[in-house]
Amino acid sequence: MINELGKKAKIAEREIRIATTQQKNNALNAIKEALPKNVQKILVANDIDLEKAESNGISKVMQDRLRLTEERIINIANAVGEIVALPDPVGEIDGGCVRPNGLRITKQRVPMGVIGIIFESRPNVTVDAAVLCLKSGNAVILRGGKEAVNSNIALAEVMREAIAPHINPDVIQLVTDTSREVSTQLMQAREYLDLLIPRGGAGLINTVCENAKVPVIETGVGNCHVYVDEFSHMDMALKIADNAKCQRPSVCNAIENLLVHKNIAEEFLPKLFELWNDKVEMRGCERSKAIININSATEEDYYTEYNDLIIAIKIVDTIEEAMSHIEKYGSKHSETIVTYCYSNAEKFQKQVDAAAVYVNASTRFTDGGEFGLGAEIGISTQKLHARGPMGLKELTTVKYLVNGNGQVR
Amino acid sequence: MINELGKKAKIAEREIRIATTQQKNNALNAIKEALPKNVQKILVANDIDLEKAESNGISKVMQDRLRLTEERIINIANAVGEIVALPDPVGEIDGGCVRPNGLRITKQRVPMGVIGIIFESRPNVTVDAAVLCLKSGNAVILRGGKEAVNSNIALAEVMREAIAPHINPDVIQLVTDTSREVSTQLMQAREYLDLLIPRGGAGLINTVCENAKVPVIETGVGNCHVYVDEFSHMDMALKIADNAKCQRPSVCNAIENLLVHKNIAEEFLPKLFELWNDKVEMRGCERSKAIININSATEEDYYTEYNDLIIAIKIVDTIEEAMSHIEKYGSKHSETIVTYCYSNAEKFQKQVDAAAVYVNASTRFTDGGEFGLGAEIGISTQKLHARGPMGLKELTTVKYLVNGNGQVR
Repeated sequence: MINELGKKAKIAEREIRIATTQQKNNALNAIKEALPKNVQKILVANDIDLEKAESNGISKVMQDRLRLTEERIINIANAVGEIVALPDPVGEIDGGCVRPNGLRITKQRVPMGVIGIIFESRPNVTVDAAVLCLKSGNAVILRGGKEAVNSNIALAEVMREAIAPHINPDVIQLVTDTSREVSTQLMQAREYLDLLIPRGGAGLINTVCENAKVPVIETGVGNCHVYVDEFSHMDMALKIADNAKCQRPSVCNAIENLLVHKNIAEEFLPKLFELWNDKVEMRGCERSKAIININSATEEDYYTEYNDLIIAIKIVDTIEEAMSHIEKYGSKHSETIVTYCYSNAEKFQKQVDAAAVYVNASTRFTDGGEFGLGAEIGISTQKLHARGPMGLKELTTVKYLVNGNGQVR
Repeated sequence: MINELGKKAKIAEREIRIATTQQKNNALNAIKEALPKNVQKILVANDIDLEKAESNGISKVMQDRLRLTEERIINIANAVGEIVALPDPVGEIDGGCVRPNGLRITKQRVPMGVIGIIFESRPNVTVDAAVLCLKSGNAVILRGGKEAVNSNIALAEVMREAIAPHINPDVIQLVTDTSREVSTQLMQAREYLDLLIPRGGAGLINTVCENAKVPVIETGVGNCHVYVDEFSHMDMALKIADNAKCQRPSVCNAIENLLVHKNIAEEFLPKLFELWNDKVEMRGCERSKAIININSATEEDYYTEYNDLIIAIKIVDTIEEAMSHIEKYGSKHSETIVTYCYSNAEKFQKQVDAAAVYVNASTRFTDGGEFGLGAEIGISTQKLHARGPMGLKELTTVKYLVNGNGQVR
């Protein structure tokens, strides 16, 4: 199956990589218009998935992620409109020079080629991933979670029909066989895929990294920290910790750990306890337990991405100890220091190794929209190719155009 | 073994990623000075490797690659001096903005972290790879070919002793156990490696891509083409084809295939035959064989990177056929068109998907030095992270520095 999809994708890729922005936007607008028109078709398919999910005892949270409604479909269509409005990175010139021998070298941004996206049972990702790949001039092969297969087939059909008058519809293809074998084939399709992006939880990402033989970008694992320095304003520290933990605890840029300098802990922790006692399950080191009445944090707690209203607290003696803790337990996603000390702010930003290193702001800003990139395909937690929020530009690569008049070496 | 090296590398990485350019240059200069001083030690070790290689019946070409001489060691030391002189990419600001909420976002270039390099039995790569990683603020774990193990141990010792007064010497470590098991461990050391670069032939690169579980950059496979358009000057076409094939046939940016437009073939091919008859083994399609007296090129020939004075020739009816041939058989490395037709030049550069797409110049220019990047660690033939010649900048990543005054979402 992957062979067949791969061959078609390679043909479609040659067409879309030279498409104009206008042509791509026309295709995107067609998707935007087709989605609301096909609400019934999509909801019928979604109902089949939802019924199966219920009879298979899938959790309510998962069912909610799987569920489409007319309102949700309209929101998805509107998000497509936002992508139409974004600038097209393809064709941008990233620099160049004329060499002493007269050769003119131009570094130009071009599409990746064929991108695979493996994701869980969230049908909104089906559209989102497809349109980001299309806008950036790539062919995409989508492999969504098996619980959403009927919804995904319907969405892919609607999108493919919509774009067919504008571009080869094989720029969007869906893997309808959701078996593990076919999934593994996709991860190892070196002949066809230029890039594979897993979108989902740690389990999915690990499976992909363990099995893939094509280039992969890891996304979305976030074990983030707030470090409350000894030189920090209590109100700001409470506000940032509270926002970073509670505003949306299920996402990767929410914090899982709180580090507090020993000189401020006796003042800070009781206030935090007052704020969080009813809403956050606090687990702490021995020293923090001597100040507030909370459960113990184990070694494992410090490694855990709860994605829930739970936090592990540790009192540290120095900023160096805080940075060492982050180095050991963190996932290099987003880290913040709350401080009014210039040299500690500088030290933290210089020495902490993460995609985003903050001073006096919530980690929740690590996001394509908040960073001004427009839509994002995910947040990279690896260092190769892209780090942090990945927008359209991160779905492209470069090529060198070299123009001469007979130069040889 | 990899566990031990990995842990040390992680500690050393924390030190070198915040080292100043001066500190790194001091370490590099110490290597530059230490190499000539330790010629005897290095040559004694190299002799052991050479004796083994001879008694094991290793080919003369391989033996020559393995051989060090005083002159070669001095050349290696001088190349270190050139890397000292290159600008340090670490710390460069790649852009940024102030968001509407007042958050200041700065995208800064930082080292990758820990880089693994797997290479064949060429001891010069040991020094070259180590100093490029050091200059770009990375810790490196080197795994060279087993035939060069004594030479590599000596070179690593000399380098580590030289840098010890300036920086944690574990920024340069060598895998001395050259067994396949340990090599596989290195390729799968997700806990320690941020990047793995294989440097060598297609066999090595395939092994790494098949087995690696860490991010990899593929380098160096080059099945490149010259396309002689119907609208081309005979002299320029001959000069470029000759240079691209013959100036150094063993390297990846030399050509392996020649495509000739049917309307020019009868004039061009006899002249080429005259030029190459004594030095290049020409294999061709049926139509080219009707013009000049050469052997047949098989389907396999068109896929082959000879790295030798052999070429496969094909006559094409159109520029489109030439581009389709390149799409099918090429390795997306370097492709060139010889033409005086503006629209064909534009079409070729726009539609051909390769790291470097040339008009009227030899493919042999795809090289870090020739592109003005200074030294190169290799030529990437994948699209993720880096494409074409990779210099110091490609050994770095970015982090976002985000500065606020209490912003929350």
